[in-house]
Amino acid sequence: MSEAYAHVLTKFGEALHDRRYPLPDPGPGEVLLRLEVSGVCGSDVHQWQGLDPRVPLPLIPGHEGVGRVVATGGEARDVQGAKLAEGDRIAFNRGVSCMACRTCVVLRQPALCPHRWVYGITRSCQDPPHLVGCYSSHVLLARNVQTLCLDDDLSPVVAVTAGCSGATAAHCFEEVRPGFGSRVVIQGPGPIGAYCAAFAKASGAETIIVVGGTASRLRLCEELGATHTINRRETTVAERLEEILELTGGEGADAVYEAAGDQAAIAEGLKWLRTGGAYVSCGVAEPRGGLEIDFFHDIARRNVRLQGIWVSDMRHLLEAVRLVEGQPETFERLVDGRFRFEEANEALEAVAAREVSKAVLIHDGPS
Amino acid sequence: MSEAYAHVLTKFGEALHDRRYPLPDPGPGEVLLRLEVSGVCGSDVHQWQGLDPRVPLPLIPGHEGVGRVVATGGEARDVQGAKLAEGDRIAFNRGVSCMACRTCVVLRQPALCPHRWVYGITRSCQDPPHLVGCYSSHVLLARNVQTLCLDDDLSPVVAVTAGCSGATAAHCFEEVRPGFGSRVVIQGPGPIGAYCAAFAKASGAETIIVVGGTASRLRLCEELGATHTINRRETTVAERLEEILELTGGEGADAVYEAAGDQAAIAEGLKWLRTGGAYVSCGVAEPRGGLEIDFFHDIARRNVRLQGIWVSDMRHLLEAVRLVEGQPETFERLVDGRFRFEEANEALEAVAAREVSKAVLIHDGPS
Amino acid sequence: MSEAYAHVLTKFGEALHDRRYPLPDPGPGEVLLRLEVSGVCGSDVHQWQGLDPRVPLPLIPGHEGVGRVVATGGEARDVQGAKLAEGDRIAFNRGVSCMACRTCVVLRQPALCPHRWVYGITRSCQDPPHLVGCYSSHVLLARNVQTLCLDDDLSPVVAVTAGCSGATAAHCFEEVRPGFGSRVVIQGPGPIGAYCAAFAKASGAETIIVVGGTASRLRLCEELGATHTINRRETTVAERLEEILELTGGEGADAVYEAAGDQAAIAEGLKWLRTGGAYVSCGVAEPRGGLEIDFFHDIARRNVRLQGIWVSDMRHLLEAVRLVEGQPETFERLVDGRFRFEEANEALEAVAAREVSKAVLIHDGPS
Amino acid sequence: MSEAYAHVLTKFGEALHDRRYPLPDPGPGEVLLRLEVSGVCGSDVHQWQGLDPRVPLPLIPGHEGVGRVVATGGEARDVQGAKLAEGDRIAFNRGVSCMACRTCVVLRQPALCPHRWVYGITRSCQDPPHLVGCYSSHVLLARNVQTLCLDDDLSPVVAVTAGCSGATAAHCFEEVRPGFGSRVVIQGPGPIGAYCAAFAKASGAETIIVVGGTASRLRLCEELGATHTINRRETTVAERLEEILELTGGEGADAVYEAAGDQAAIAEGLKWLRTGGAYVSCGVAEPRGGLEIDFFHDIARRNVRLQGIWVSDMRHLLEAVRLVEGQPETFERLVDGRFRFEEANEALEAVAAREVSKAVLIHDGPS
Repeated sequence: MSEAYAHVLTKFGEALHDRRYPLPDPGPGEVLLRLEVSGVCGSDVHQWQGLDPRVPLPLIPGHEGVGRVVATGGEARDVQGAKLAEGDRIAFNRGVSCMACRTCVVLRQPALCPHRWVYGITRSCQDPPHLVGCYSSHVLLARNVQTLCLDDDLSPVVAVTAGCSGATAAHCFEEVRPGFGSRVVIQGPGPIGAYCAAFAKASGAETIIVVGGTASRLRLCEELGATHTINRRETTVAERLEEILELTGGEGADAVYEAAGDQAAIAEGLKWLRTGGAYVSCGVAEPRGGLEIDFFHDIARRNVRLQGIWVSDMRHLLEAVRLVEGQPETFERLVDGRFRFEEANEALEAVAAREVSKAVLIHDGPS
Repeated sequence: MSEAYAHVLTKFGEALHDRRYPLPDPGPGEVLLRLEVSGVCGSDVHQWQGLDPRVPLPLIPGHEGVGRVVATGGEARDVQGAKLAEGDRIAFNRGVSCMACRTCVVLRQPALCPHRWVYGITRSCQDPPHLVGCYSSHVLLARNVQTLCLDDDLSPVVAVTAGCSGATAAHCFEEVRPGFGSRVVIQGPGPIGAYCAAFAKASGAETIIVVGGTASRLRLCEELGATHTINRRETTVAERLEEILELTGGEGADAVYEAAGDQAAIAEGLKWLRTGGAYVSCGVAEPRGGLEIDFFHDIARRNVRLQGIWVSDMRHLLEAVRLVEGQPETFERLVDGRFRFEEANEALEAVAAREVSKAVLIHDGPS
Repeated sequence: MSEAYAHVLTKFGEALHDRRYPLPDPGPGEVLLRLEVSGVCGSDVHQWQGLDPRVPLPLIPGHEGVGRVVATGGEARDVQGAKLAEGDRIAFNRGVSCMACRTCVVLRQPALCPHRWVYGITRSCQDPPHLVGCYSSHVLLARNVQTLCLDDDLSPVVAVTAGCSGATAAHCFEEVRPGFGSRVVIQGPGPIGAYCAAFAKASGAETIIVVGGTASRLRLCEELGATHTINRRETTVAERLEEILELTGGEGADAVYEAAGDQAAIAEGLKWLRTGGAYVSCGVAEPRGGLEIDFFHDIARRNVRLQGIWVSDMRHLLEAVRLVEGQPETFERLVDGRFRFEEANEALEAVAAREVSKAVLIHDGPS
Repeated sequence: MSEAYAHVLTKFGEALHDRRYPLPDPGPGEVLLRLEVSGVCGSDVHQWQGLDPRVPLPLIPGHEGVGRVVATGGEARDVQGAKLAEGDRIAFNRGVSCMACRTCVVLRQPALCPHRWVYGITRSCQDPPHLVGCYSSHVLLARNVQTLCLDDDLSPVVAVTAGCSGATAAHCFEEVRPGFGSRVVIQGPGPIGAYCAAFAKASGAETIIVVGGTASRLRLCEELGATHTINRRETTVAERLEEILELTGGEGADAVYEAAGDQAAIAEGLKWLRTGGAYVSCGVAEPRGGLEIDFFHDIARRNVRLQGIWVSDMRHLLEAVRLVEGQPETFERLVDGRFRFEEANEALEAVAAREVSKAVLIHDGPS
C-alpha cells in the first residue's frame, strides 16, 4: 500500500468523503502506523454535527486507534522503553501534551496541558502530513506521541476501547479512589460506565451499583464488577434513591461516578452520596447550559466533593490496558457495533441514533 | 458564685431572658467551666431568628466559649494529656462526636458524625444540667468533650475566635492545602476569611488575594497574610475576574476559598480558578435554595474540584489555636465588637445589623 | 453456663492452667461474649515464652476471638450502628484506644494511641472482671471496645483470622496502596502474607509475587491473588532478585510487603524495589537487635520509602472482614490447625514448633 | 566575547585547567547562556575527588548556574510560558529528564528518570557542544532543559542556591509535608538544612529545631524559620534527645529532615521521632557502607516512615525560587564564600576544607 485511505469531514453534518494521501516517510522519532481498528466515540458524533468548537475542517475524525508499526524515523520507544519495530501492535495516547509547561511539569497534569492537541479532533488534515485522525488506514504519530506496545494476544478491538473510554474512567479513579469495602454507584452503563464498574472492583469496593436504561448493558457491567444494577426505565427517582440507600447501609454511597452524559443525572446522583462522599463527573463533554443544584443540602451540609474530570493522560491509558488484559473477552463485548472500515458513515449514524453504544471500524488486511 | 447566670432564648426572634441555674457538681470526667469570653457567631443570629431547624427551645445560645476550670469530676485531661486543674484556662470543641460510629472510627471524620451534638445549638437547657450553651456564666462540659489547655498569656478574646471561625478555616485547608508558591483567592474578609488568609500564608502560598466589601477588614487580612485585596464595592464582576487573572499569571487561581456566605459568590468565584483548581466553600451554613452553575465550563472542562465544608473537629481547633499563638495581637483585632456579658441582646442585634463582624461577650470577674 | 472457663498463663514458658471465673453482669455499655473460636497468633508464642515485655501475669492469653453476645449492659451498638442482641455473632477490635488523646483525635491514628490496651496481652486476669483474654469461654468487652456484627453465614473460623492478621495487612495497604496495574512482592506466605496477597489483588495490582518457603502456603496465596510465587528454599538470593526483576519489567517492584518476621528478609527485599518504590514491614513484632542496611544504594539513591507498621485499628478490621466475605472458603484454608478449646497448650506448641501456621481453638456448644 | 572560558577537570584530585571553546550557535530550542554566578556544591568536591562514579573526564564541573540569555535557537519559552529574549536572567533545572518514559510519564517522578543526565556531572566536555557544565563562562542549554525566567531584582547569588540545595529541600517537603502546628527537627544547618528550616516555616510548623555544629549557621537558620537550635558540639547524644523531647511535648517530632550528610545522624535522628512520625533523608549523596538501625524500636514499633530523597525536579526548583523571593537578603547570607570565577580551584578547596559552607563563583561583566 503506497497511499493512505481516509474518511474526511468537509462539512458539518454531512457524510464523510473518501480521500487518498501519500504515505509519509516518518521523520526523526515519528512512527507511521497502519490501523487495525478505529474506534467511534460518542464525541465523534458531536464533532461531526459541529457541536465541538475545537474542530477545524477538513478533518479526519477519530481519536481512537490501534494498529501496527509500518516504519519509524530512526529509533522510537514506547513508554515502557521497548524499541518499536515494524509489525509491532501499539496503542497511543490520543492527546499530545507539551511536557514542558507549568501544567505538565510543575502541576504534573499533562491531561490539562493548555497546548494539548488531539488526534482526530483539533488538527485539520488540510496540510501535510495529513494523517492526524484515526478514520484512516494510517496515522503518522508525531515524535512526542506516547505509545504502548501491546501483546499480540490482546485483540485490537478490546485495546481500542481502553484508549478513550478506559483511560477517562481511570482518570476518574485517580482523582477519587474508593477504599476497600466501599460502596460505589455508577451512572450510565456505556463504555465509560462499564470501565468504571471494573475499576471499582479493582479498587476493592464491596458494593458496586450501576444505574442505566439498557438491560443488556447492565448485565455486562455485572460481569465486569457491578454487584447490583438499577434500570432507570423501570424505576422512579424516589425508588432509585430508596434502593441505593438500602444497599448502602442507609448512609448513601462513598462515591458516585457519572458517565451518563446528562446533567439531570448530576442533580439526581448528588443525593445518593453519604456525608463526606465524592461525586465524580466525566460524562459532560460539551456545553449544556446551566445546572441547578441544591448547594446547601447536597454539597455544603454534607461536606461533599464534586469533581469534574477532563480527558486523560498516558498513566490512565496504561492502567486501562492493564485492566482489560485481565478480562479481555468480557471487555470485547463492550463493542456492540462492528463495521468495516469503509462503513464509517454507517457507524457514525448508528451511534448518533443510539442503536449501538460502542462502535469500531475494522480495517482489512493481515492482522 | 453558687448559681450560673444565662441568657435564654425562649421564643424565636425575641429578646433573650436572664435565667439562674444551680451550679452542678461535675460527674466523672465532667468539667465545670466559668466562662471568661463568649463568642457571638453569625450563625447565632440565624438560630435566634429561627432559621436553623436544629434548635430546640428553650436554648442557651452560644457555641463559642473560653473560660477557667472551676471543678472536675475526678481526673480530667485535655487532648494533649494535661491534667485539668482548677483555674486552668481552656478552650473546647463545641461539637461532641460519639467517637464510636463508622464516621468517627472508620472514616475518621468526627466532624461529620451523625450523632454529633453542639453546645448552644442542638440541646435545650430545659433539663439538667441546663448549662449547655455559652451565653452563660458557666458551662458543664460532658465527659467526652474535647478540651485544650491554653497559655495564660493568650487572650481569651483571641482564643474564642479560633473555636469556630478558626477551626472551620482549618477544615477548609485540610481538604485543600495549597502548595508552596501557589496562588489563592479568598472570598469574604470576615472572621473565617481572615483565618483563611492566615492559613494560606502558613501553607506557603505566594499570592493571596482577599475579595470583600469592607476596607478595614481587607486591611486586617493583609496583616494576616493577604498579598492583595480587591474591594467588591468598587469593582465589577468583569474587573475582578480580570484583576485575578492578572495576579495569577493569566491562568487563574490554584484554589479559591469561599467564606462569604453568599451563593452568588460561588458562581462568580468558580470562574477565577485555573484548570485543575479547587473551590472550597464553607460559608453557606443554612438553606439558600437552588444555585445555578455552568457545569461544563466551570467544572467539567476545567477538571475542577468543588468541595463543601461542614463544621470542624478537634484537629482543626488545635491548628487554629497554634496559628493565633504566632500573631495574637493581629488576631485580636478580628473582634470589632466587645460587649459586656449582660449585653447579649445588644451584641446579637449588632451582628444581625452587620454593624460588627465579630462580637464577643466579656464576663466579669477575675481573669 | 454460670462460670467462664479459661486457660491462664501463670509462669512464662510453662503450660497454661485451667481456671474458672464467675460470669460478670455487664455494666453500662459492656458486652459479655461467649466465644466460638479463639485464634492462636504467632505472637502468643512470644508472650508465652516471656519475650514480650508488655505481658503481666497471670494472663489469659489470646487477642483473637469471635463469639456470640450473651448479654449487654443496656443498649450497645456495633461500629455500624447495629444494636447488639443476645445471640448476635460479633468480632471486636482487640486493641482499645482512648479515642480522646492527640494521637487518636488530632493525628487520627488510634492504632498508635499511647493508652491503647489489648485483650490477651497487656492486662492481667488477676482482678475482676478477669475475662480480658480470648483463651477463655467468655470475654467481657469494655464499654469502649469497638465491635462488628457478622453475618451468620460467615464462619467464625474465617472471621477470627481477620481480627489480627487481616487487620494488620489492611494497615499495610492503608499506608502504601499500590496503583492499578502495579507490581508487588510479598515476603512470607503466612496468614498476614496471604491477606497481603488478597489486598494487593483488591488494589488492582497486576503482578503479585509471593516469596516463601512452604509450597502449600504459596499455592493458597495464588488462590487469594498471587500471580507468581517463589520458593525461597529452592532459590538463592541472586536467583530471587533476578526472577523478580524479570517479572517487573527489569525495574523492580513498586512495593514490597514484609510479613516474614525476619530481619534478614528486610535487607534482601529492599533490593527488589524500583526507584521510588516503597517497602512496608509489619512482620517484626518484637526486638531483634540491629539491622544493617546499605542506606545509600537501597534507600537514598533510589528515593525509597521504608515504612514500619504497628498493629491496626477498627478501619482495618472492617476492611479485612469485607475482604474475606468475598472469598470465605479460600480464607478458611488459612487455618491449618484446628484444636478443641481444651487443647490450648497443644495449639501453642504446634505453632511454636512451626507445625502449623495458623491455629484456632474451637469452643463447644451450639454455634 | 566569541569564546567560552571554562575550568576543566582532566584528572581526579588535581587542579582544574582553563580551556577555551568556541561559542556555539544554538540549534532549534536551544539556549546559549552567559553565566553570572556559578554555584559550588558540596558534591562538586566528591566529583573532583573521583568519588562519584557517574563522572566522565574531561569534565566541566558545576551543576548550579544562573545567567543571562545570549541567544536562542528560534523561539524558546520558560516553564511558565515566557518567551526567552536576549538578556533575560534565567535559572534552569540541572537535571534533564526524558519526559517520555514510564518514570516521567506514568509515575510522574522525573527526578527519578533513568535517562536523566545532569549538567556538570554526567557528560564530558570532550565533544561538542562542550559547554555542559557551569564552571564556564557559558553553557548551552539543550532543547529539553527546563528554564525559569527570574526577576531582575533577584540577585543571581541568591537564585543559584535555589537550584540545587533549595530544590532538594523542596523535594523533601513534597514527600513529607508537616502539618499546621507540627514539630519538626532538621539535622545539619548547611544550605539544604537552611532551606528546610524555611520550608518548615512555610508549612506552618510551630516548632522548628535545627541541630548543627556551627553557631553562625544556626543563627541564620533562626532567621529563616528555626524556633530553636541545638549545637551538637556543645551537647551529648542524650542531651539532644532530652531537649528535643522536651520541645515536642514529650512525644518526639512529627518529622525529622536529615541534611547532615552523615549516616551517624540517621541512627541518632530516628530516635527523635514520635510514634507515627517520618524521617526524611537527603544528605547521603554517595556510598557510605552499611548503616545499622534498631529496626524494631525505631521503625516497626513506632510505625515510622523512613524516606530517602534523591535529587529534585522542576517543581522543586520553582518552589525554591518562590521561597527565596520572599526573603532574599536572608537567603543571600547562605553564601559564605564568594570567589571570582577565575578562582574555581580556590573555591573547591575551601569547600573541601569546610572553610565555607556555600561558595559561588562570580563572573565578570555587566550584570
